[in-house]
Order: sequence, then structure tokens, then C-alpha cells
Amino acid sequence: MSNFFYFLKNNKAPLVHCITNYVTVNDCANAILAFGGSPIMAQDIEEVSEVVNNCQGLVLNIGTLHKNSATTMVKAGKQANQRRVPVILDPVGVGVSKLRRETVEQLINQVQFSVIKGNSTEIKTLVNLAAKSNGVDACETDKITKENLHEGVLIAKKLSKQTGAIVVLTGEIDIITNGETTYCVHNGHPYMGKITGTGCMLSGLLGVSTAGKCENILINVVQTVSFIGVCGELAYQQIKKENAGTGSFKVMFMDYLSTLTKEQFEEKSRIEEFK
Amino acid sequence: MSNFFYFLKNNKAPLVHCITNYVTVNDCANAILAFGGSPIMAQDIEEVSEVVNNCQGLVLNIGTLHKNSATTMVKAGKQANQRRVPVILDPVGVGVSKLRRETVEQLINQVQFSVIKGNSTEIKTLVNLAAKSNGVDACETDKITKENLHEGVLIAKKLSKQTGAIVVLTGEIDIITNGETTYCVHNGHPYMGKITGTGCMLSGLLGVSTAGKCENILINVVQTVSFIGVCGELAYQQIKKENAGTGSFKVMFMDYLSTLTKEQFEEKSRIEEFK
Amino acid sequence: MSNFFYFLKNNKAPLVHCITNYVTVNDCANAILAFGGSPIMAQDIEEVSEVVNNCQGLVLNIGTLHKNSATTMVKAGKQANQRRVPVILDPVGVGVSKLRRETVEQLINQVQFSVIKGNSTEIKTLVNLAAKSNGVDACETDKITKENLHEGVLIAKKLSKQTGAIVVLTGEIDIITNGETTYCVHNGHPYMGKITGTGCMLSGLLGVSTAGKCENILINVVQTVSFIGVCGELAYQQIKKENAGTGSFKVMFMDYLSTLTKEQFEEKSRIEEFK
Repeated sequence: MSNFFYFLKNNKAPLVHCITNYVTVNDCANAILAFGGSPIMAQDIEEVSEVVNNCQGLVLNIGTLHKNSATTMVKAGKQANQRRVPVILDPVGVGVSKLRRETVEQLINQVQFSVIKGNSTEIKTLVNLAAKSNGVDACETDKITKENLHEGVLIAKKLSKQTGAIVVLTGEIDIITNGETTYCVHNGHPYMGKITGTGCMLSGLLGVSTAGKCENILINVVQTVSFIGVCGELAYQQIKKENAGTGSFKVMFMDYLSTLTKEQFEEKSRIEEFK
Repeated sequence: MSNFFYFLKNNKAPLVHCITNYVTVNDCANAILAFGGSPIMAQDIEEVSEVVNNCQGLVLNIGTLHKNSATTMVKAGKQANQRRVPVILDPVGVGVSKLRRETVEQLINQVQFSVIKGNSTEIKTLVNLAAKSNGVDACETDKITKENLHEGVLIAKKLSKQTGAIVVLTGEIDIITNGETTYCVHNGHPYMGKITGTGCMLSGLLGVSTAGKCENILINVVQTVSFIGVCGELAYQQIKKENAGTGSFKVMFMDYLSTLTKEQFEEKSRIEEFK
Repeated sequence: MSNFFYFLKNNKAPLVHCITNYVTVNDCANAILAFGGSPIMAQDIEEVSEVVNNCQGLVLNIGTLHKNSATTMVKAGKQANQRRVPVILDPVGVGVSKLRRETVEQLINQVQFSVIKGNSTEIKTLVNLAAKSNGVDACETDKITKENLHEGVLIAKKLSKQTGAIVVLTGEIDIITNGETTYCVHNGHPYMGKITGTGCMLSGLLGVSTAGKCENILINVVQTVSFIGVCGELAYQQIKKENAGTGSFKVMFMDYLSTLTKEQFEEKSRIEEFK
């Protein structure tokens, strides 16, 4: 278990229920375990309420959506809201299709999210459903850099105010805001985009680090974003040393998720408040 | 191919049909291959009978169930019974929902299983559907240790007598019984629970080691349980030496599944009959 | 990114849409990324047309088929044909069931494929639906070796003429033909069959190397087949040196997919025209 778990007040591994895509589901389960949580994946409408009733966190990820996923996700999300279980939304590729946009609209209208995490294209799509998207990665023109950081912050804040959720806008610089207070995280490495699932794994980790807590979680979210970035940096350093590639990167990334110490994290973490 | 394959009388890789969850399906396929089998995953009701007709083993795993999975699994299981193909049941998280309990009830009533493998919470749920469960891991209060081993044996034997199946109750000490003869396996390592899928992989391996044989398979089952435990122990030793984490553990665990020799297995295997 | 990407004329990572099985989907996504592409997996009939509209390649893989997959795949394939997006077919285990045979028949009748890739049993099944198959691997009697190479070439050419697609018949010697010109590739290693997904990954890579191009792609296909074989050979050499197993093989195989240089490829590649 990674020492990151010191964020959590209780010592029992929180059960995190994921309704997620079948591409990265195994990586999400392993990331949640590495981080000190216990994952459960269940997506049939007949059982999601019961599963939510036993969970401390719920993660909804639309990576490979089915047309009846909306109904199931709304049901699970409402139940989580009633039980005050935090709900994380990962609107993967939301701009790609009408099905995804309509599903996310329904979700945002009917479920109170604790955290919404997406890349710049996804977050823009949520703010303004007219944004152009053609895949699951951020469009070049949307990417957040030092130059357009201010614009990124405005968009993230807007979505946060519209939804009441903490918004995590991932990119070269990650922006995390609750609409009032905003943090920037300068961790991570572009190589994280060379394997599938780092974004989905972040959503899973957010399910762990916010587990059982719907309020005062901004710092948990910020540190989780920084944590996964630090793991990516260290894994990249290691594969460069060994002249290895994406296969080894994935293994080492998971190794750091499960072993990073508080000291390593604090040494490498680069978080600043945006004013 | 791991040398464990010497258990099998024939030299052709047995075809093992898995109807399983989408979280660990890739790991199960690779574990079956590592162990000398050939996996096939097929779950549409229109093709399961044909697939069963060509198989030497069938593994039913309810990890991510759909409401019509019951019908498909019953159909596949009955066909396997007719053709005398051994059927393995892995009732993942059976206590979590009504859907899972009802599916497993239907399965147990209509299909003759060769082996049922579960953790203590799952096996207790099968014996007595009133047992309390809140995830896919065993509840703390249910865990089998030296202190309550006798109780675990009683439960496993009861389920074996109820179902006619060999029951594998996994835990710190694994219990394997056909209702008459009972073995305890003292292999394995808690770190195996830090990655997803070791339980599902065991079910897959049982599909290989019992392939084509519905009788006199108790020793095959016992040795398979010990085998996977030895692989977990050796993989753990290796990652401790290298200060690695769960990513590397998974890789090394699969390496041992595919390379462990008869000599290594016999040196480390700790099987005893329970009297 | 592997240097193989020099095959592609444009520098932007092509978006490759996969409708594929849930066993190897994660490996396919990572292989496509390693090779310089960008994967998107989407299979709901309500969104496939929109996704195809944004893609440069479409891969259809029937590894874990549902009975309504045919309709979805035909819809996606027709849309790709209209937009002149190349379509790759991977008829995994097509001989296993009526469902698979009928799905592939529908696909071949209604979609113009750029490439069809299968092992000898699968390709024979396509040519003559009477061929006998009992799993997802090639039957022993069907395997292509030096002795029956000529027969393999005849079958591959026949299917190419029937369908207008480039046919890739994988085996000890890989045969690639457009019906007129035929190449043999003498790369690869039997150990590639000890992990699941190398065949599915090849289909994914073909989606990258043919992206955006429906004509004059024979050499792209041939080199992609050779490329994945070289990666398999090098990964096998490395695990033998380290006494490792299938877990490490998978990691190193992905490492080579993402790092192999033009020089390494050209040194190891063994392609010859068949006359």
C-alpha cells in the first residue's frame, strides 16, 4: 500500500464502486488497490443500488458507453447522493458523440458530483456543448499551457460554479478548483499519454482519496492529482535509465502508485495556489 | 509452459471456455496460457453451446454480472454436464446483491459443479444466504486463520455435501474438500490481494488442471491451489529484493505461473491432510 | 513512439476506431499508442457512425461477439467505406460458432475490407465455411510451414480475390497477398502464442499503418507484420537471457513496439516476395 493513504482518516480500505469502461477497467482496479482502496465493478441496473449502499465512493466513467448506461449511472449516482457518498465523473471523450453528450447532460442535471475530471476538450465540452472534439485526447488547440493558463482557470471555475463540483482540468499544468479557490499542479510527464488509462486511473484514485467525505475535499483532490503526476515522473526517469518503453512504464507507474512514500511525494510535489 | 502441466495426462493444451468478468479476463486468459491451457472467452447465448462442445473445461465467474448472464451460464453449464466437461464456479462477491445471489442459486440448482471456489464470505453466503457481505473481498470477521480453521472446514464440507462439488475455501490457509477428504494448503502471500484477479486466475487454472476429468480430481485441485500460492510467494520475494510494487508483482507472478518447475513446486508446496 | 511511424506520411497520430473484444482491448489500445496511433473504442450502435467520421482507421474484431454486434459492425464498416477509411477485419475464432460465421458472412458481403488478417484455420473458414475449427488458435493440421506454404498462398490469394482485401495469413511463415503480389514474412516467435492478444494487436497496428489510405498499402501491411514479428523475437531473446516468463515477455514486447528503431527493424526484418 502506498503511503499516500495517510490522507484518509480511517484505516479500513474504502470500497470504491466503479461503473467504467472495459478498456482500462483492470488498470483502474489495480490502481485503486495500489492506493489503499478496494475496488468493486458492477454495472447491471438491478444491482447498482445495493452496491452503492456498501460503498464509500462511486466513480462514473463513460469511456465505452452503452445506450442504457445513462439510466444505470443516474440511478447509482442518485443513490450515492442520498447516502452522501462522493461521486466522481470522468466524461471520457464526451464531445465524440451525441450519445455521450446526452448521457453527461442527464448525469449533470440529476446527480450532484463531488469531482468532475477531464482534459481541456472534455471540460470545454461540458461548459459549452459546441466545442469540437474528435477523440479521447485533448485537441491541440485546447491544450492548457503557461500561455493560456488563465483561460483554463476561467473555464474550470465556470464548470465548477455550474455544477457545484470540484473541477479537475488535466494538462501540462493541471487546474483544480472549487469555483473559489484554485490550485495548479506542475507534476506529471507527457509519456503518461503513451499508455492508455492514466486518466481513468486518476478518477479511480479520486474515488479513494475522497471516500466517505463530500465536503472539504479540495486538498485531497489536489494532492491526488499531484501524486499520480509524481508517479508518472519517477516511472519515466526509470525507463529512460533502462532504455525501456511503454510496457515497462506501465509496470513502474503502478509500482510507484503502490510504494511512493510521503517523503518522496513531498519532495517532488509541485502545487501552487492560483491567484 | 509451466511444468505444472505434468498433471495432465494428455499433451494437447486443453481448451478452457470462460464466461467471466471484464475486469480480470485478460489476466485469466494469460494465466490459462501460462499454465498450459488454451482459453476461449464467449458469452453470447447463441454460441455458448457450440463453444462448450469443443471444450475440455468450463469456468463460470460472476464478477461483473448482467441480468441475463444466469440464463447463458445455466445453458453452458447444462451442456457441459451432458458432455461430462468439468464446470468450475467462482461466485465473486455473491453476497453483494440479490442479482448475484439469485444467479448463483439458479446455477447451483441446475448445474452440477466439479469445483466451487470462493473466499470465506462467499462460501458462507452459499451455505447460508443470510451471511453479510459488502464487497468482493472476505469480511474481516469471516477470515480463516489457525484459530477458526475447524469452523472453515465445517462450512466447506457442508457446501460440498450440499452441492456434490469439491469446495475450495481460500484464505490465509486454503481449505479444499470433497466432503470426505479435506486438505489444507499453507501457501500464498497476502500481497496477492494487492492486485486484482489472483482469485479469478485460480479458477481459470482449475479449468486447466481438471480439464476433461469429472472424477478423482481432488488432488489436481489441491495442487493447483498450492501451485498458485507458491508462485505468489516467489513473486513477493522477488519484488521485496528489488523494492518494487504491485506492477512488478503482477509481472513476476505471471512469470512464475509460466516457468515454475516441478522441483521448485515440490520444494515449496505445503499441503497437509486435515483430520 | 516507435520509429515505425516513419511509414506514415502525416505526423499527426491517426485516430483508430476499434470495435473489439473485451479480452485484449487494453493491449490493443496500448499497442496502437506504442505504434504512434491514437485508439478509440466505441461499440454502441448509436455512436459508431459519429466516431467513424472522425477516424482514419477502423478495426473490426469478433473475439467476444454479441448477437447484435453484426449490425453495429456493418453500420460502422459501411460508413468507413463511404468516407474511404480503411477497414481491417480480424475474424477471431470464426469457425467456432454459427453466430461468428454468420456475422463474418454479413460483414464480407456488405463491407469492403482493406485487410483481412487471420490464422490458417480462420482464413480457410472464410474461404470455405466447411473447415473444422475448435478454438481461437489454428488447428495443427492447418498450420502453415515450409512444406505446405504453396497451399497457404493459394488459399490466401483465393480469399483476396473473393473479397478484394489484402489477406494476411499468420503462421510460422506469414503470407501477405493482394491476390497478385504475395510476400512471405519470416519473423516472429512461437512464444508470441503464449500470451493472449498478439494477433489482436497486429490488427490494431494495421489500423495505424494503413490509416487514411485505401490504396497502395500492401507494403505497409507487409512491414507491419514483419515489425510485430521482430518485436516478438527481440522480446523472446530478452526473457531467455533473464530466465523470465510470459509476464515479462508481454512487457518487453510492448517495450519494443514503442521503441524499435528503423535500424533495428531493417536489420532483423525478413521479407521475401513469393514467386
